[in-house]
Amino acid sequence: MELKDYLPVWNKLTEKEKLALENSVVRKKLKKGTVIHNGTQDCNGLFIIISGEIRVYTISDGGREITVYRLFDRDICLFSASCMLNSIQFELTIETQKETDVFILPVEIYKKIMAESAPLANFTNELLSSRFTEVMWLLDQILWKSFDKRLAGFLLEESAIQGSETLKITHEEIGNHLGNPREVVTRMLKYFSGEGMVELARGTIKLTDIKKLQNI
Amino acid sequence: MELKDYLPVWNKLTEKEKLALENSVVRKKLKKGTVIHNGTQDCNGLFIIISGEIRVYTISDGGREITVYRLFDRDICLFSASCMLNSIQFELTIETQKETDVFILPVEIYKKIMAESAPLANFTNELLSSRFTEVMWLLDQILWKSFDKRLAGFLLEESAIQGSETLKITHEEIGNHLGNPREVVTRMLKYFSGEGMVELARGTIKLTDIKKLQNI
Repeated sequence: MELKDYLPVWNKLTEKEKLALENSVVRKKLKKGTVIHNGTQDCNGLFIIISGEIRVYTISDGGREITVYRLFDRDICLFSASCMLNSIQFELTIETQKETDVFILPVEIYKKIMAESAPLANFTNELLSSRFTEVMWLLDQILWKSFDKRLAGFLLEESAIQGSETLKITHEEIGNHLGNPREVVTRMLKYFSGEGMVELARGTIKLTDIKKLQNI
Repeated sequence: MELKDYLPVWNKLTEKEKLALENSVVRKKLKKGTVIHNGTQDCNGLFIIISGEIRVYTISDGGREITVYRLFDRDICLFSASCMLNSIQFELTIETQKETDVFILPVEIYKKIMAESAPLANFTNELLSSRFTEVMWLLDQILWKSFDKRLAGFLLEESAIQGSETLKITHEEIGNHLGNPREVVTRMLKYFSGEGMVELARGTIKLTDIKKLQNI
């Protein structure tokens, strides 16, 4: 479990560049709920996830949230180092969803190498493109998909992530992922429950008809 | 009006790279309504706008449209060359809004130089980041801003672009920019008209109270 195992571009870097990264990387265990990045204020470095989960989301003036995307093992969090790209002018909040083990690469070091290394700059381009793809997917969902489809999709996705058909998640947390008030989530879950697709209990949602959820 | 005047990164390229770009660039005058890029199918090159206007939008399965962003003089259209980034996996339609004079750089040439040139790769990173910023702005608008605010903002922006307070645009075209059905646009414009902010006529909208529109 070394840095080089987590950076696919490693073999295209020079020895000097590898050394600079190895000498500056920090490994940290972050508690659940650690805010890595808050709006446009801080710029704490590139976070590479060894294990755990990170949520990237935006908040409205009124305090409503929506998940832009989530990152898991081996993913690289670019926007925690957004200051290294001048043209990034938007606010995101980045927070651990569970205990998360990470490598942190300092912005100045990464930026300096990227300025001279075509492979690292191209690698960063691909990272940025991946995130762009996720945001465009989200935009499509919000614009053209009705809420029942988005909720069914979220429950199935969450079930795959948690590796269980009984999800430990509150209606408010789902609302924060999908950008809807809690009441809207509760109403739709009750409808799903009436249709036999889920069973609701305090703090858990059990998926009882996966096929039907998939059909939505 | 040469290519080098439109590529801010020009002076950081090698002589060989400059020559390769100069020898492959094509200049074209595109008619209004030319579709440069359609979903993920084609990959016609990087378009640099000398003069004119390009609209980048998505279409729902049901045929509804929303403008993701618009490009004007000196802007560079990256997603018409999206195949050069493997991680871009989304569909956009790109179309000229008026007669548009462009430089076109072939994808293979640009991609080849970018693979070796850190300056060009970093320049591309900044382009991508700019577009990302525009998409995040749009996402925020759609998620948290009510339609009256979005419509007022669009009318003011369009007035600045057209350089006139009398806009030549149909309700359907506005709907396609903002992602709403024509009827919704008409209803809100009638409300604006009742409030003395606009005057409606066939094919035109005259802004009669800029201050009030700004206050929305």
